[in-house]
Amino acid sequence: MIGLGTVGAGVVQLLNQQRKLTLKKIAVRSLEKPRRIELRCPISANVSDLIDDPEIEILIEVMGGEHPALEYIEAALERRKHVVTANKEVLAKHGPALFEKARRQGVTIFFEAAVAGGIPLISTMHKGLEAIQISSVIGILNGTTNFILSKMEESSLSYEAALAQAQKLGIAEADPASDVDGHDVAYKLSILSALAFGQFVQPASIPKQGITNIGPDALAHAKELGYRVKLLGICRKVNERDNKSYLDVRVQPMFVPVNHPLAAVSASKNGILVRSDAVDEIILVGPGAGQMPTASAVVGDLINLASALQLPDFASYFHYDIAPQWAQLADKDDFVCPFYLRLSVANLPGVIGRIGTTFGAHDISINTILQHGVHNDHAKVVILTQAVRNGNLHRALQELSQSDYVKGVEECVGIFEPAYENA
Amino acid sequence: MIGLGTVGAGVVQLLNQQRKLTLKKIAVRSLEKPRRIELRCPISANVSDLIDDPEIEILIEVMGGEHPALEYIEAALERRKHVVTANKEVLAKHGPALFEKARRQGVTIFFEAAVAGGIPLISTMHKGLEAIQISSVIGILNGTTNFILSKMEESSLSYEAALAQAQKLGIAEADPASDVDGHDVAYKLSILSALAFGQFVQPASIPKQGITNIGPDALAHAKELGYRVKLLGICRKVNERDNKSYLDVRVQPMFVPVNHPLAAVSASKNGILVRSDAVDEIILVGPGAGQMPTASAVVGDLINLASALQLPDFASYFHYDIAPQWAQLADKDDFVCPFYLRLSVANLPGVIGRIGTTFGAHDISINTILQHGVHNDHAKVVILTQAVRNGNLHRALQELSQSDYVKGVEECVGIFEPAYENA
Repeated sequence: MIGLGTVGAGVVQLLNQQRKLTLKKIAVRSLEKPRRIELRCPISANVSDLIDDPEIEILIEVMGGEHPALEYIEAALERRKHVVTANKEVLAKHGPALFEKARRQGVTIFFEAAVAGGIPLISTMHKGLEAIQISSVIGILNGTTNFILSKMEESSLSYEAALAQAQKLGIAEADPASDVDGHDVAYKLSILSALAFGQFVQPASIPKQGITNIGPDALAHAKELGYRVKLLGICRKVNERDNKSYLDVRVQPMFVPVNHPLAAVSASKNGILVRSDAVDEIILVGPGAGQMPTASAVVGDLINLASALQLPDFASYFHYDIAPQWAQLADKDDFVCPFYLRLSVANLPGVIGRIGTTFGAHDISINTILQHGVHNDHAKVVILTQAVRNGNLHRALQELSQSDYVKGVEECVGIFEPAYENA
Repeated sequence: MIGLGTVGAGVVQLLNQQRKLTLKKIAVRSLEKPRRIELRCPISANVSDLIDDPEIEILIEVMGGEHPALEYIEAALERRKHVVTANKEVLAKHGPALFEKARRQGVTIFFEAAVAGGIPLISTMHKGLEAIQISSVIGILNGTTNFILSKMEESSLSYEAALAQAQKLGIAEADPASDVDGHDVAYKLSILSALAFGQFVQPASIPKQGITNIGPDALAHAKELGYRVKLLGICRKVNERDNKSYLDVRVQPMFVPVNHPLAAVSASKNGILVRSDAVDEIILVGPGAGQMPTASAVVGDLINLASALQLPDFASYFHYDIAPQWAQLADKDDFVCPFYLRLSVANLPGVIGRIGTTFGAHDISINTILQHGVHNDHAKVVILTQAVRNGNLHRALQELSQSDYVKGVEECVGIFEPAYENA
C-alpha cells in the first residue's frame, strides 16, 4: 500500500480485523511520523520496495494527488500488478492511458473508493447494471459543498460562515478550492462517464460553476419557491449534429424541487441518480467520503480482487469497455433548463416591460416573477424562466447587463427539472 | 429459458437486441398461445428438452411459483447448469438446500431479479459491500402495497378503492393476498437475510402484518403528525441471550417520518436502507418490478455469468457464504419502537386516566395524545407512545380491550424511529 493517511489508516484497521488478506509493505512519506494504528508489516520510505517486489500481487494506492501517484500506478501496471486506488484525480486525468495499459498487461484497476466513497456506485454501474443502456448520471458528488449548502439553508448562514464551520469540523480543507469550484466533481464525472458511456472526459474541458457565488438570497428564494440548492454533477448522452452522440457533462449548482429525492440528500451525503430507458430511475444515497466508508470501499475491492486472483486470466472478467480516446462534449449552450435569475434593476417605469421584451427577443418565456418592494433607486427582481436554451439565456443576460435599466445580474442558477434532463 | 410470461418476453426482447448471448430453447406451458414477440429459437412444451440438453450451460427460470419451478431448478443444478432465476418464492423457501446443491455441483445461482427488480440490490450486497458488516436491512420491498398506500394518502381513498385502482392498472393481481398480507415481502426478507447475514429465514416463521387493516383515519393522523405509512420489511441482527446473535425479521406497516428518505419512496417504487457501522446508511431507490426492469436484471445476471463462464472454476468467485441451516429468529416481543394507537373509548369520566394507568403498569410512556370531540356515547383517542417493548404493548392492549371503558383497539401501527432500530 502506498500512503498511510486517513484512508490508509482505515484500510489497515479493517485488514487487521481479518486473516485472509495480508498487507506486505506500506510506503510512506515520513518514517518518523507517529502512527496511532497497529502496523503488522514493515513501512518503507522507498516506493520501489513495493513496486519491485515480485511477491506483491496488488498495489493499493491511497496517497492521493496527481504526481507521483500516477507514476507509481503506471510502474505497478507495467510490472503486472493489479491496482486498487481511491485516486479520482489520476483516473480522471489519465484514465484512457491507464486502462489501456492495464488491458495490455492483463491486469485490472479497481477504484470503488474514487467516487462516492461509501456508496458502491462503481460496482453497481460496472456489474449491477450490465444490461441497461444508461442515458444519464446526475448526482450530488461532493460532500463538502453539500454540507455547506445544507448549513446555509438550515441556519441562514453566509457562504463564508458555513465554509468556516465545515473547516472546523474537518469536512472542508484549509484551501477549499477543489471542492467549492467544482474540480472534485469534474474528476468524478469523468470517471462516471467512462463507466456509463465508455469514455473518460478531460476534466479541464468540463464546464464548472462552483458554489462561491451562491448567497443567502438565492437560498431563501429557493425555499420560498419550493426548491433546494444542490451542486450537481451532470453527465448525459445527447444526440446532436450528424446523428453522432456527444456527452453533455457539467458541474453547476441547481434548484432541485423539494419533493425530488436528490433534495433529501442532506449534510455531507452523496446521492446519485442513474437513468435508463429500461429501468427508468435508480437512486443511490450514502456517505460520499469519510475514513471508514472510503476504507471499506478499498477493502471491498481487495476482497473481490483477491477472490478472483485464484482464477487464471480472470482480468478479462473485470474488463472495462473504455475507449482510448477522450469523449467529445456537446455544445454547452445547447443545454435546456428553466432558470432562477435575480436582477438588480433601476427604479424606473417600464423596466419589467423592457426585461420581458429582451427575453422575448431571445426566445425566453417567463414562468414566475417576484418583486418585493423598492429600495432607494433600485429594486430586486426575481424571475423563474420556462425551459430555455442556455446559450440564449446568456446572450439575453449580457444584453440586459449592458442596458441602463439593469444594474446587475446578481444570480443565475439553473433549475433541475427532470423532464428537461431527458430532452 | 423456462417461462415466457411478462418477464420472459422482456428477456427475449433484450437478448434480441444483442449478439453475444443466444437463447437456445424456451419451455412454455402452451405452444398455442399467441406471442407478440419475435422468437429466434424453438419453443417446447417439454422442459426436459432444456434440462437434458448438454449444450445448454445456463438455465433461466422465469416461470414463477413454487412448483414445478423448484424441481426444474434442482434438475438443472444436478446437471451442472448455472441458474439465473427471478423466483423469490423458491429461493426463500428452499434457499439453504439449493445453494448447498449449487456449491456441491460447482455451479452458481444468480438472482438479481428476485428482489427489488430494477435495483441492483443483490450484486450490491454480494459484491459491492464485501468489506462491511451489515447490521440491518430495512426497506419498502413491495411495489403493489406502496402504490396502494401512496394512493390512499394522496387521494384520501379507502384501501378497497386504492386496491381497485391498482388492479385496473395491472399493479395488483386479481388475488392480491401475497402482496397485501406481506408474504411477498417475507420471501424477499428471507433472501436478504441470506445475503446480509449468511442465513435464509423460513418465510412461514416471519411475523407478518399486512396493510388490509390500514384505514384512511390512520393515514390522516400520520399526515397530521408528520409521518407517512409504509409497509416495511425489516431484517436486523440482534444480540440476545447467551451472547448469541439472532435475527429480528418482520413485515409490518409503520409510520415513517416525512423527512426520512424512505418516506419519499412513492408510487410502486422500492427503497432499501442498508446499515453498517463502517458506512452508516446506504439507500437504494428504484423500480421494484415491471417487465423491463426485471428483465434487465435477468439479462445483467446472464452477461455477468457468461463473461465469467470462460474462466475455469469461476464459480468459487461467486460463492455465497450461506449456511445450510435456517436462521434463528429473535423473540418478536422484544422489538422496541414507539407506536401509533387509535382506541374507541366509552364517553365516561376518567377514561384517559385509566388508559394511562394501564399503560404505566406495563411500562409504557405516552408521547402524544389527541382526542377530537365526542360522538354520541364514545370518543376516538389517538395515542403516540414513546419507545416500548412490543410484548408489553400487546399485553396492555389486550387488557384494555377486555375493559369496559375501551370499546376497541381500532389500529396499532409501529413508528419507524431510526434511533430505536439500532438498539
